[in-house]
Amino acid sequence: MNVLDSIDQPTLMLDDSVVRKNIEYMLLRAREKKVSFRPHFKTHQSAQIGEWFREKGVSKITVSSVEMAEYFAANGWHDITIAFSLNLRQIKRIISLAKRIHLEVLIENEEALTALSKINETELGVWVKIDVGNHRTGLDWQEVSTAALLCQKIRENPRLKCMGVLTHSGHTYNAGSKHEVRSIFREGVERLTLMRLALEGKGINELSISVGDTPGCSLCEDWSGIDEVRLGNFVFYDAAQALAGSCDFKAVSIALACPVVAKHHARREVVVYGGAIHLSKDFFTINGEKSFGLPALQCGDRWGSPMPEAIVKGLSQEHGILHIPGAEFDRISVGDLVFVLPAHSCLTVQVMGHYLTLKGERITTLNQK
Amino acid sequence: MNVLDSIDQPTLMLDDSVVRKNIEYMLLRAREKKVSFRPHFKTHQSAQIGEWFREKGVSKITVSSVEMAEYFAANGWHDITIAFSLNLRQIKRIISLAKRIHLEVLIENEEALTALSKINETELGVWVKIDVGNHRTGLDWQEVSTAALLCQKIRENPRLKCMGVLTHSGHTYNAGSKHEVRSIFREGVERLTLMRLALEGKGINELSISVGDTPGCSLCEDWSGIDEVRLGNFVFYDAAQALAGSCDFKAVSIALACPVVAKHHARREVVVYGGAIHLSKDFFTINGEKSFGLPALQCGDRWGSPMPEAIVKGLSQEHGILHIPGAEFDRISVGDLVFVLPAHSCLTVQVMGHYLTLKGERITTLNQK
Repeated sequence: MNVLDSIDQPTLMLDDSVVRKNIEYMLLRAREKKVSFRPHFKTHQSAQIGEWFREKGVSKITVSSVEMAEYFAANGWHDITIAFSLNLRQIKRIISLAKRIHLEVLIENEEALTALSKINETELGVWVKIDVGNHRTGLDWQEVSTAALLCQKIRENPRLKCMGVLTHSGHTYNAGSKHEVRSIFREGVERLTLMRLALEGKGINELSISVGDTPGCSLCEDWSGIDEVRLGNFVFYDAAQALAGSCDFKAVSIALACPVVAKHHARREVVVYGGAIHLSKDFFTINGEKSFGLPALQCGDRWGSPMPEAIVKGLSQEHGILHIPGAEFDRISVGDLVFVLPAHSCLTVQVMGHYLTLKGERITTLNQK
Repeated sequence: MNVLDSIDQPTLMLDDSVVRKNIEYMLLRAREKKVSFRPHFKTHQSAQIGEWFREKGVSKITVSSVEMAEYFAANGWHDITIAFSLNLRQIKRIISLAKRIHLEVLIENEEALTALSKINETELGVWVKIDVGNHRTGLDWQEVSTAALLCQKIRENPRLKCMGVLTHSGHTYNAGSKHEVRSIFREGVERLTLMRLALEGKGINELSISVGDTPGCSLCEDWSGIDEVRLGNFVFYDAAQALAGSCDFKAVSIALACPVVAKHHARREVVVYGGAIHLSKDFFTINGEKSFGLPALQCGDRWGSPMPEAIVKGLSQEHGILHIPGAEFDRISVGDLVFVLPAHSCLTVQVMGHYLTLKGERITTLNQK
């Protein structure tokens, strides 16, 4: 019995050969551009997939939580940036972890620095988190005096090392075109560069610039002025990234295998076992309609290209409603598997908690499901 | 140190006294209306919370997956309905489970009945799943001839028991008013009643009517014509249900405790550690704005009422962005806890995977996190 035949419930399939290609491509891209590569592991959250990065020579990583840093530290990673503004309530865990590995954190206010003043018996790299226009969080890129104050306070503590200025231009994910992605990406770098220049004017030197978002790093050829990139999504990409042009559909390396439970001919809808608890409720808009992913038929021992015009119209807890206007509708039977390329792979991985490779190997994540 | 002081990362708090009140209220409501009560356990997904139902005399439950049925069967539940259209690929697991407990399933097509023809050494209750207007899945309520055919085929197999007609009027969740919720709820019952009458006209008798949605059962006093209710969300309710009028805010029994990591005064925004992987990306619309939950301040050893006009404006993987126009903004400091009443409790529970009671007891779920 082949791997797909054995699937009886929603299963997150992973094509490891595509994952390895994605890793290699982006690593080479960073090397060619002479930019330090610190991939974000929040997308895959898996010690085993981490090893595929290590095999290619990656030794520095980014994570999004203290818990994730502890998990990867326990799995042999000794140089980790927690790319989330310092949470005062986790200061003990952070300091404890910094005693075991080289750790870097982000701060954006004085409260964080007061908490860090407790540090002893170890050292910690500290980045100042800057908002270059995404308006999620961080110090506004024009607030030079506050940034200078924070840098000075970091430098006053001999246990802290002031790394530089860091941003996440997450608004590239909402851009309407490749051109807009590139503009946002470059604008972010330029704003960090202006901030660094202003800080140098105040005698604060040796600051690096760290950025990281998959659309920008995938679509923009100009990486000048960047010292470090921290992108994560590229390891799997997803339907939204392929539609935005960040990658080819062939580079999407995960898909949810879903058993078909019903067909509604008049509406040309297929109901699958595969809902919000398997895909997450993230969506994109295509031709004016919401879609929670892109459906594809089985093709040999994996999924094929997305079906033209087909969408994931609705998701409830366990159900997915696929609208399939094309002739593929007639090729689908109750009991078949249909695949869904996730709208947002990071969240799909988080809700699923594990993968099955096309060869039938189970790969777990931080969530160990 | 009290329970809340010890929290260092997003934590799903549960007020067990409110949970118990919600269970008792709905159970009494069903008893008064002389309707069989088969609560849906997909909301809490927890063996331990299941015991609170059992203590009140509940012995029959509903679940949304075979996996969940296996979990609750292993935890002493012997009468379970899997309220999800039969998945052919799980037929062996279903038959195996039916040998250990009284199991009921849903079908809506002949393929499912063909798969069930393999049943041996046990019996199985089978409901015909009807679509009364929600248009997720199920046989249209006017398709009497197909329903009659399915019922006849069920009755031809001595191992199958034809239970009746069942629906989920999930469109009550999108209703614009309490009046509309009640109309949809009653319309569903009336359509099932018409279907049953038509089937009786074809000599198919002894059919029950099963419905179940929290808005309808909470807001509609008229339960006439219903044999069984299968609602689930009422155990916790959530921000969306309180805003829709299905419950008082005091009946919302879970909230996500989130550490505050930054404040942005000009925008009156508070950034918390608590994102899409903690709350899910479900949202509602309030005053024309999307919100992923309702923020509340700490009040003694639990959360208080939602802050007026405050919303959860955005969620990324780990970040939540709260917009707090009122004076409460000034009472919040970096390092504090802020609580978020989830937009949709079922999905929040699924992503979090466990609870912490106000007394500090950890309660796990099917996901065992």
